Amino acid sequence: MDLGGHHKDNFVQLCNPNVATLKEDVLYHFGLSTGTHDLSAMFGDVKFVCVGGTPSRMQSFIRYLASELGFDQPGADYPNICEGTDRYSMFKAGPVLSVSHGMGIPSIAIMLHELIKLLYHARCSGVTIIRIGTSGGIGLDPGSVVITQQAVDACFKPEFEQIVLGKRIVRSTSLDEQLVRELVECSAFLNEFPVIVGNTMCTLDFYEGQGRLDGALCCYTEKDKQEYLQAAYSAGVRNIEMESSVFAAMCRACGLRAAVVCVTLLDRLKGDQISSPHEILLEYQQRPQRLVGYFIKKSLGMP
Amino acid sequence: MDLGGHHKDNFVQLCNPNVATLKEDVLYHFGLSTGTHDLSAMFGDVKFVCVGGTPSRMQSFIRYLASELGFDQPGADYPNICEGTDRYSMFKAGPVLSVSHGMGIPSIAIMLHELIKLLYHARCSGVTIIRIGTSGGIGLDPGSVVITQQAVDACFKPEFEQIVLGKRIVRSTSLDEQLVRELVECSAFLNEFPVIVGNTMCTLDFYEGQGRLDGALCCYTEKDKQEYLQAAYSAGVRNIEMESSVFAAMCRACGLRAAVVCVTLLDRLKGDQISSPHEILLEYQQRPQRLVGYFIKKSLGMP
Repeated sequence: MDLGGHHKDNFVQLCNPNVATLKEDVLYHFGLSTGTHDLSAMFGDVKFVCVGGTPSRMQSFIRYLASELGFDQPGADYPNICEGTDRYSMFKAGPVLSVSHGMGIPSIAIMLHELIKLLYHARCSGVTIIRIGTSGGIGLDPGSVVITQQAVDACFKPEFEQIVLGKRIVRSTSLDEQLVRELVECSAFLNEFPVIVGNTMCTLDFYEGQGRLDGALCCYTEKDKQEYLQAAYSAGVRNIEMESSVFAAMCRACGLRAAVVCVTLLDRLKGDQISSPHEILLEYQQRPQRLVGYFIKKSLGMP
Repeated sequence: MDLGGHHKDNFVQLCNPNVATLKEDVLYHFGLSTGTHDLSAMFGDVKFVCVGGTPSRMQSFIRYLASELGFDQPGADYPNICEGTDRYSMFKAGPVLSVSHGMGIPSIAIMLHELIKLLYHARCSGVTIIRIGTSGGIGLDPGSVVITQQAVDACFKPEFEQIVLGKRIVRSTSLDEQLVRELVECSAFLNEFPVIVGNTMCTLDFYEGQGRLDGALCCYTEKDKQEYLQAAYSAGVRNIEMESSVFAAMCRACGLRAAVVCVTLLDRLKGDQISSPHEILLEYQQRPQRLVGYFIKKSLGMP
């Protein structure tokens, strides 16, 4: 579980020879550019990137982490590095970067394209990237944390399909098995909340796309929904969210060690609405942060 | 162009009988609920909803509109109605609601499910909804505004395909033709910037999905890209963005009069990067706001 090892010299790679030939590379949705920012100086030491949906969650994560790692200075705060735009928020403490990605595959894909180019321009090496998110569970108590074995699509296949130049292409969504094991070890040591390993279904919609009965549109019955969720459970799916497949596919293609750690906010076999009290949901959302915070601390040799 | 007419008694409808039977409906991503908020009192008078990507743009739109409509009070500001969450932002001035939707089909779809339910619970009628956004142009000078005739997918078909319970379903993306004509009339009267009517291609990705050569991944050539964009142009596509198809499909299914008005930030036949100066981009982004602001003013009988 040491930080370096065989990852030490693994520089972040692009799957695109064109970027090296650009005179300037504008990372438009971050409000950063190679022409106006010294990305090596700003980001060259990054070893861990954590990504999640909302700006406030990613800001509270960096505060938590800085305090855990002892980087916390009295009165210091962590400014939003992307303050020039409100597409995404980004925070940094030592070797850890924390970035928001909004909701859904397209939103996280834009962020990942620009993040991976940022890490490439900054000549970062040996980077581990973890999505810490929220999800709906299947057959789990709310508050359970799922470490993703495989990200699967709405037909339970471990694939990410996209349209490029009008043609369908398919990429693998496999994740790093060793990293899953390391996270499981950390959860066993922490022993603060239930953590399981399972498949994560990634959908393009929160309502109809996840079989909810409470959207503005719904053309199926409770029975249809239960059959679909049971089929998902039989295929090993333990939670449902909206970003893991493209996250797994893009990180794999660019040689980033990647994991997905999501808390479940409800059991979808028992309902559709997220109606737990705000304080309960807030505590649930901190669970992936605690697990991944401990993993980073341990990786940095500070257990 | 009067506000009422045949729309006067058109209450917003859901395509889902289940919602009427819910004891409480939690609009989770808005931080609002029928159990804790009097939605009729808060939103019953809404006649126009404008949606766009970022919180700051939708806040500046409501300020602009309030000033144009004479609702502006010295020192008054327009608080974020969704301040309990940072998933979306929402602002209101008189009969106009302004809501951010993030980036991409899944993000705007979640917002639209909850927005349409909000308008339904509030018993709103005769509502017009307009997306005011940014886009990449094809064969147009940057700064041109495109009013969408048809929203088409990455294969140029006027369809929105989604997976529901594991099966592909397809919905029409037709928009209101009369509303397109009314917006064209307004643009002719304003005569401040180029406005054209054309098809809008809606993609699931900003980089590979739009044929860009400057993403973290790219497995095609400049020639492949040009052929794809030329084929899009031949199919009537004049701009590319990431939300119009599901916006058109959902609004149509629920009987909302809908239009899409996007400015083009660059000509994709000439490049991929958005590198115009910040002030130029800011002025471009105000153009859909000015056109739609004028349309609303005229619709309210205040020309």
